[in-house]
Amino acid sequence: MSSITTSIFKVTAEIQSFGGKLVKLQHKSDETKTDMDVNVYLPAQFFANGAKGKSLPVLLYLSGLTCTPNNASEKAFWQPYANKYGFAVVFPDTSPRGLNIEGEHDSYDFGSGAGFYVDATTEKWKDNYRMYSYVNSELLPKLQADFPILNFDNISITGHSMGGYGALQLFLRNPGKFKSVSAFSPISNPTKAPWGEKCFSGYLGQDKSTWTQYDPTELIGKYQGPSDSSILIHVGKSDSFYFKDHQLLPENFLKASENSVFKGKVDLNLVDGYDHSYYFISSFTDVHAAHHAKYLGLN
Amino acid sequence: MSSITTSIFKVTAEIQSFGGKLVKLQHKSDETKTDMDVNVYLPAQFFANGAKGKSLPVLLYLSGLTCTPNNASEKAFWQPYANKYGFAVVFPDTSPRGLNIEGEHDSYDFGSGAGFYVDATTEKWKDNYRMYSYVNSELLPKLQADFPILNFDNISITGHSMGGYGALQLFLRNPGKFKSVSAFSPISNPTKAPWGEKCFSGYLGQDKSTWTQYDPTELIGKYQGPSDSSILIHVGKSDSFYFKDHQLLPENFLKASENSVFKGKVDLNLVDGYDHSYYFISSFTDVHAAHHAKYLGLN
Repeated sequence: MSSITTSIFKVTAEIQSFGGKLVKLQHKSDETKTDMDVNVYLPAQFFANGAKGKSLPVLLYLSGLTCTPNNASEKAFWQPYANKYGFAVVFPDTSPRGLNIEGEHDSYDFGSGAGFYVDATTEKWKDNYRMYSYVNSELLPKLQADFPILNFDNISITGHSMGGYGALQLFLRNPGKFKSVSAFSPISNPTKAPWGEKCFSGYLGQDKSTWTQYDPTELIGKYQGPSDSSILIHVGKSDSFYFKDHQLLPENFLKASENSVFKGKVDLNLVDGYDHSYYFISSFTDVHAAHHAKYLGLN
Repeated sequence: MSSITTSIFKVTAEIQSFGGKLVKLQHKSDETKTDMDVNVYLPAQFFANGAKGKSLPVLLYLSGLTCTPNNASEKAFWQPYANKYGFAVVFPDTSPRGLNIEGEHDSYDFGSGAGFYVDATTEKWKDNYRMYSYVNSELLPKLQADFPILNFDNISITGHSMGGYGALQLFLRNPGKFKSVSAFSPISNPTKAPWGEKCFSGYLGQDKSTWTQYDPTELIGKYQGPSDSSILIHVGKSDSFYFKDHQLLPENFLKASENSVFKGKVDLNLVDGYDHSYYFISSFTDVHAAHHAKYLGLN
């Protein structure tokens, strides 16, 4: 029934949207040892250029706590801008699913829906909670194999909250891999924030020296690699996770960047009135899309 | 805490979105005798023009089966176009809530979430299921009283599925009240469709002659009133409610329009590949927004 031909991924839904198609996919992951869902938005150009070979850049969007690939697909509104510029958008899941590790489903901010884009080392989680390697080393190459028209060598990365942290982290840990990075309300300094402390201690253990390898505020000073792109960040000033719970700490990241090759290149926008929701994300999707389009060579 | 001053409505949430605000409201309805939720999107112009008096037109969006005011607020993507042209969007609920009439919550297509924009006459439902009068005669005047900057004399109407039917029905029953109408996958001839037959028989009884007063395909031929606006309709060709279940029947409406003052003015677009979902709605919101902006004097 599907008009998309895949071998690694199973197409579970194919939904016409804004002239392109949202394709819902499932595959067996070697990293998480579970079935994983992922959504890919293929812009109109994908179908128009079908025969022309590798031509479409990719934006990787990492979601926040509790989300599946569907939330951002429905509510972040990347589609019109993906069509405007001509890039695909990949929406991975936020954790392994279908396991029943003791305690896995007890809280919204640890375990299922909260993989935190790390490779767990603690006994209980290390066999499945490998979301860093899953996204970075397994998902992208497999998608490249099944979607040769997309060009995963011309890729940028963004995300929201836990996914905003994930975007900064993957960008900084893989110099040159992503053409540009942006983030919506990222957990910018997770080793200093309650969400990060909970996930890092659970997945990585009590030795905090192991945590810093995933903390963007720790990573940026050590980064050596291309720095021609700016780092675009939006945070809502009325986001209680920002102003009240101090989960996001973007100022720490900005400060650390001043002693890095990105000095003067972190474009931190604290925006009046906005909260942490998809209402906030979708309000600035256009600006982030333009940012990435520039570095993907699209505008 | 709210920056919006209201007396009839209680503000339950105020969410910054695309430069304007989505305001979630609650009030006690005389028609349904329940508390009713309604969302209003106030574009950036509302705040900029705050002191300038009645200036902003209104688009009334009626939702489909099962929806609350929140679904379309999150997923239909009216906000950027409301800001582009400068109109407010009103999202009413789809039925009374908080009652426990026997059978009310048993099916998705009757009772709660399925008020069908009629005034019930059957014993069981007549005291509360008065969604026609609620939307048309109570909600709009009350919103006008609490939001004097909005101009409810310059209003258009649209909706999806059950709400698309509701939009056509309210437009045709109230000649001259709405400047223009449009609909996404409307139940265009409900007296001939399973959804309509179920709701009409439940709310209005077995005498089918009482049903026709709410059926757009019956109403259009009898309509006498302004006909300067075209009627814009989009239906997805891959919508199984259209091609398989014959719930929508837009061709019947188009045919009936040929013997009406709207002859040649029903712009029915059957679009390839699209389904019945918000992915479909949001893909064409821009076209519908432009349609209404034209008749609201905004472009």
